[in-house]
Amino acid sequence: MSLNRQIVLKTRPQGIPTLDIFELVNGEIPALEDGEFVVRNRFFSIEPAIRGWLDDRKSYFPPVALGAPIRSSTIGVVTATRNSRVRTGDVVRGIGRWEDFSVFSDETILLERIAPASDIPLSYYIGALGVSGFTAYVGLHDIGSVAAGQTVVVSAAAGAVGSVAVQIARLRGCRVIGLVGSAEKAAIAGDQLGCHEVVNYRETTDLTAAIDQIAPDGVDIYFDNVGGPILDAMLLCMKTFGRIVNCGMIESYNHQDTPPPIYNLWEMIARELSMRGFLVATFGNVLPEALTTLEGWVRSGELKVMETKRVGLEATPQLFCDLMTGQTKGKSVLELP
Amino acid sequence: MSLNRQIVLKTRPQGIPTLDIFELVNGEIPALEDGEFVVRNRFFSIEPAIRGWLDDRKSYFPPVALGAPIRSSTIGVVTATRNSRVRTGDVVRGIGRWEDFSVFSDETILLERIAPASDIPLSYYIGALGVSGFTAYVGLHDIGSVAAGQTVVVSAAAGAVGSVAVQIARLRGCRVIGLVGSAEKAAIAGDQLGCHEVVNYRETTDLTAAIDQIAPDGVDIYFDNVGGPILDAMLLCMKTFGRIVNCGMIESYNHQDTPPPIYNLWEMIARELSMRGFLVATFGNVLPEALTTLEGWVRSGELKVMETKRVGLEATPQLFCDLMTGQTKGKSVLELP
Repeated sequence: MSLNRQIVLKTRPQGIPTLDIFELVNGEIPALEDGEFVVRNRFFSIEPAIRGWLDDRKSYFPPVALGAPIRSSTIGVVTATRNSRVRTGDVVRGIGRWEDFSVFSDETILLERIAPASDIPLSYYIGALGVSGFTAYVGLHDIGSVAAGQTVVVSAAAGAVGSVAVQIARLRGCRVIGLVGSAEKAAIAGDQLGCHEVVNYRETTDLTAAIDQIAPDGVDIYFDNVGGPILDAMLLCMKTFGRIVNCGMIESYNHQDTPPPIYNLWEMIARELSMRGFLVATFGNVLPEALTTLEGWVRSGELKVMETKRVGLEATPQLFCDLMTGQTKGKSVLELP
Repeated sequence: MSLNRQIVLKTRPQGIPTLDIFELVNGEIPALEDGEFVVRNRFFSIEPAIRGWLDDRKSYFPPVALGAPIRSSTIGVVTATRNSRVRTGDVVRGIGRWEDFSVFSDETILLERIAPASDIPLSYYIGALGVSGFTAYVGLHDIGSVAAGQTVVVSAAAGAVGSVAVQIARLRGCRVIGLVGSAEKAAIAGDQLGCHEVVNYRETTDLTAAIDQIAPDGVDIYFDNVGGPILDAMLLCMKTFGRIVNCGMIESYNHQDTPPPIYNLWEMIARELSMRGFLVATFGNVLPEALTTLEGWVRSGELKVMETKRVGLEATPQLFCDLMTGQTKGKSVLELP
């Protein structure tokens, strides 16, 4: 058995995660059972969903156990295999863990062999050409019914999913309003991502009034990455028959025991709104189309990929903490050299 | 011009409506303009939506003006007409007002000439065979995608819409759990309406636990007539891909400035739920099918129609106040003799 460095959960976080809840330990690669294979991890997807898995709370995945490596979407290369469908050298993506080597099997969640294009950086396949981009694509098309001429608001517009969502909406012919939490992100959303309007909600006392002024006829699609007071304000800005895409609720992840209250659900009836949450794994059948479309836009330069990349397993906890306090832009990627 | 008694809004309600905000006045039937016709009102639909129209607040209808008669869905008989498509003696339904005679035109909201069956009481056409029944039907079919074998929870299960919804769900082969607010209503929901299970939420300290015990595999459809803490608790009881039908939020109507908070919207994502509000007027195309189906069930005795009926224009405010404090069962109908 070989050395396998791992980042494990030392204690459960209280609110915003801090470095001291994580620990770097020297583990081992276990002997493979039939059907299993070893993946040398190359990129971790550092994403807010991980925060939810750290609480001791029933959800769509079981909580990460104390002392266990942190669950994370990864891309890696197969280095050993006892699975006849997988060969050494294959590039795979799936839910692995924060460690040098993860053991996968056919049971691995979201497992797929990927065929990265040689002219596109591999790290893109964990972000804009991976779950983040797929989430933006599915959320706008399959949940939001995006169409040219609509007004689309995206929160966390400079984030991993948001930065792709605002560009897809623009490419689909929509008027796009990006919501961000800093002047730096506002510049990114406007200048680099091409939002038609940008609102920094930290500098806005009345978000509803600000959106009403920019979009007096109302909003067709609100692509929500944050939940909480921003979702509450947006409920008052929707057009009749508007769609709210429940993609993420970062406001809730850090505070699962005291989630921020929502007061304006009455608007669901008055404006005949629909609201729908989703996990991208449910939409496996549309992902090939999403990938082809997104790869085309990346190649043509129409879709700009934004990354906050750090290198080295030991840098993972800091990148995650930076993400959860809003310090990162675009996709947060950890690269293992 | 002839005498036309009217119930007008004297002052706007603060919270739960009280008798003193209404006033009975002697108005007149105005001279008809071209296209207008006079309807002698026979039945008012006394419903929670009226409460929302009494606040000075933008919504899907403008607020009732101070001194103006209260807006209400009515059934009546045409007594005079300057509209070539309407004849004296026609029975019509539409949004009228609390008054002996309402003037309608082609612009009247939800206006339709109805053809009540001679073997069915006319009052049913303002309730189970009118907007209340249509709302239950559309909510379960077009919003909730009801199907045999599903578990359906209906709040305000002994109310105007709820009492029809629980019976439709049962007739469609679902397991039906009714939520009610009193022992008397619990008996109605169970014994008369045929709910498989009934929960009195006023006698239940943990509604989520109570539903989890009755429906350990989760709820497919929550037909929500109340909003507030009951909706919040139900978010924790839904199956993956469950549907929440936002039909009414009586918890919010009495307290529009301080609506009850919702904390559990994170479940929208974790359980991949959808939630949709609707107004029955949007679904005009399905109402003929709804009426035919509902009339058939009424005739066969499979659908029991529950009414709280009072007689006389002057009894209208008391019936409305009783409705808004949970004192009525089934459809609240005001009959003008």
